[in-house]
Amino acid sequence: MKELSNLMNYRSNIKVVDATLRDGGLVNDFYFTDEFVKDLYHANVSAGVDYMEFGYKASRDMFDTDKFGKWKFCNDEDIRAIVGDNNTDLKLAVMADVGRCNYKTDILDRSESPLDLIRVATYLNTIPAAVDMIEDAVNKGYEVSCNIMAISNTQESDLKIALDILGQSPVNILYIVDSFGSLYPEQIARIVDIYMEFLTKYGKKGGIHAHNNQQLAFANTIEAVGDGIDYLDATYASMGRGAGNCAMELLLGFLRNPKYNVYPTIRFVEKHMEKLRQEGILWGYDLQYLMTGLLNQHPRAAIQFTKEKRNDYSEFYKEIVAQD
Amino acid sequence: MKELSNLMNYRSNIKVVDATLRDGGLVNDFYFTDEFVKDLYHANVSAGVDYMEFGYKASRDMFDTDKFGKWKFCNDEDIRAIVGDNNTDLKLAVMADVGRCNYKTDILDRSESPLDLIRVATYLNTIPAAVDMIEDAVNKGYEVSCNIMAISNTQESDLKIALDILGQSPVNILYIVDSFGSLYPEQIARIVDIYMEFLTKYGKKGGIHAHNNQQLAFANTIEAVGDGIDYLDATYASMGRGAGNCAMELLLGFLRNPKYNVYPTIRFVEKHMEKLRQEGILWGYDLQYLMTGLLNQHPRAAIQFTKEKRNDYSEFYKEIVAQD
Repeated sequence: MKELSNLMNYRSNIKVVDATLRDGGLVNDFYFTDEFVKDLYHANVSAGVDYMEFGYKASRDMFDTDKFGKWKFCNDEDIRAIVGDNNTDLKLAVMADVGRCNYKTDILDRSESPLDLIRVATYLNTIPAAVDMIEDAVNKGYEVSCNIMAISNTQESDLKIALDILGQSPVNILYIVDSFGSLYPEQIARIVDIYMEFLTKYGKKGGIHAHNNQQLAFANTIEAVGDGIDYLDATYASMGRGAGNCAMELLLGFLRNPKYNVYPTIRFVEKHMEKLRQEGILWGYDLQYLMTGLLNQHPRAAIQFTKEKRNDYSEFYKEIVAQD
Repeated sequence: MKELSNLMNYRSNIKVVDATLRDGGLVNDFYFTDEFVKDLYHANVSAGVDYMEFGYKASRDMFDTDKFGKWKFCNDEDIRAIVGDNNTDLKLAVMADVGRCNYKTDILDRSESPLDLIRVATYLNTIPAAVDMIEDAVNKGYEVSCNIMAISNTQESDLKIALDILGQSPVNILYIVDSFGSLYPEQIARIVDIYMEFLTKYGKKGGIHAHNNQQLAFANTIEAVGDGIDYLDATYASMGRGAGNCAMELLLGFLRNPKYNVYPTIRFVEKHMEKLRQEGILWGYDLQYLMTGLLNQHPRAAIQFTKEKRNDYSEFYKEIVAQD
């Protein structure tokens, strides 16, 4: 049972990371208006959010710049057009996927960039490549985190080896990522336990990125924070791939640090998020995502079901259960 | 941390209670079609649900029978018209509110009734009246549970006195009710701890009825079951007052007892629940319910906001924060 004092008080090393543009960008191919992005930036500053992730540093060799909005690529000048010199306490982040980012050329020295944090995302089978990206970013002067994706599909013994390798790298933060939204709070507690062993050993911080397939993104996030995890990803109105993420407005309501303020997040959701839905941008908890979460599967079949505007949920269930 | 074995295995004394007609009835004034109720009954039987709550035994002196559907009153003959002799393993329940039920006359002997379980609902200030109703129902041969409502607003010392009084009554099951959807899993764990002391002392079972204001109804329910609570309320598609309840389809996906089957619940939601929404019946998580949950307030202001089809969330927040 968590300490009552921990619930009423706060740890000042807890950091909130807004991932709306990045994970939300997976829903609308990163086509956000500049007004949306500017308002989001100002909402984050007012709400006391610690980091704002602008999107991906995706390879222009692999991805057609005509088929995605600019936040798939996150040119530094596009970020500067929003934030100017960013004379605020809000730090700026991008995600760089292993194998999908020309990090050596596309990520400039921190001294030349508005960015503060590079978030390296990897699966368990590409840890050495992740370490190379981490070293590159650290050498350029950035804070660096590493997201280990699809953690619900990994063996604990493999995870420990990965954490031991990453622990020896200069990375600052190691993230638990429940990519399929399949984990229950009890499992999060157990995974945090494994992480904490290596975080403590190597002097790193822990983070969590949850998905809402079983309406547990918020619950899993506050489970993790109670267990010692410091970096918490959230998105406005849960906007993110498939069932979406931990809602920023829920998370800031929970955290007791007086620097956080839920009101600007409500204002932002009121102004922008219902409009996105009316334009046909679809995300959030629904039965098809519950089912892929329950079965610990990637949500791509559920996303396809959503795109096709299907509502034959029971047929879909039969399709995804039968994975012969 | 919960035992891994408890998560992979199951306790056979766990019981699932479908509260769709009762809590959902608060959304549509209990106007369900007979087809809906019959299909729900069959879905519950197929899904292995243990109890189905049909609605309230509300006083016809206090409530106008022309202004509510029949499940506000739950005449035994109306139930029989749905279930016949109910030759199934599904037990049938109704709720009886303290002060709003002519229980002495309206609840017949169990031998003459299709009902199995009487669920007495009380606030902390009407415990002696609840005990009177409990004794009446036990004497008539029923299983009896008692819901202590608005538990997030009670003092722990008062709660202990109430549990001690109820423990000495012949009630079978004592329920935790998070009426305002304001509790976090850490708090549920602490409240279960208090309940378990008296449940163990007096040989009673514990139950939980959660609300989804902060997307925690499911998370709080599985927190409670991990802590020793046996009776779990859920509703199809979370249908219930305000932000609704723990979703049946989430709960049955979580429970490992092979007698539970999530597929019939998906079929039912597919056939009936989207239709209700299209007819304008509104429930479920939204910002206004998050706000009343966060502030530990009754959701009535949020329900009114919903009815008026308002979407000025930030104005609403200012209204409910300023409770001078």
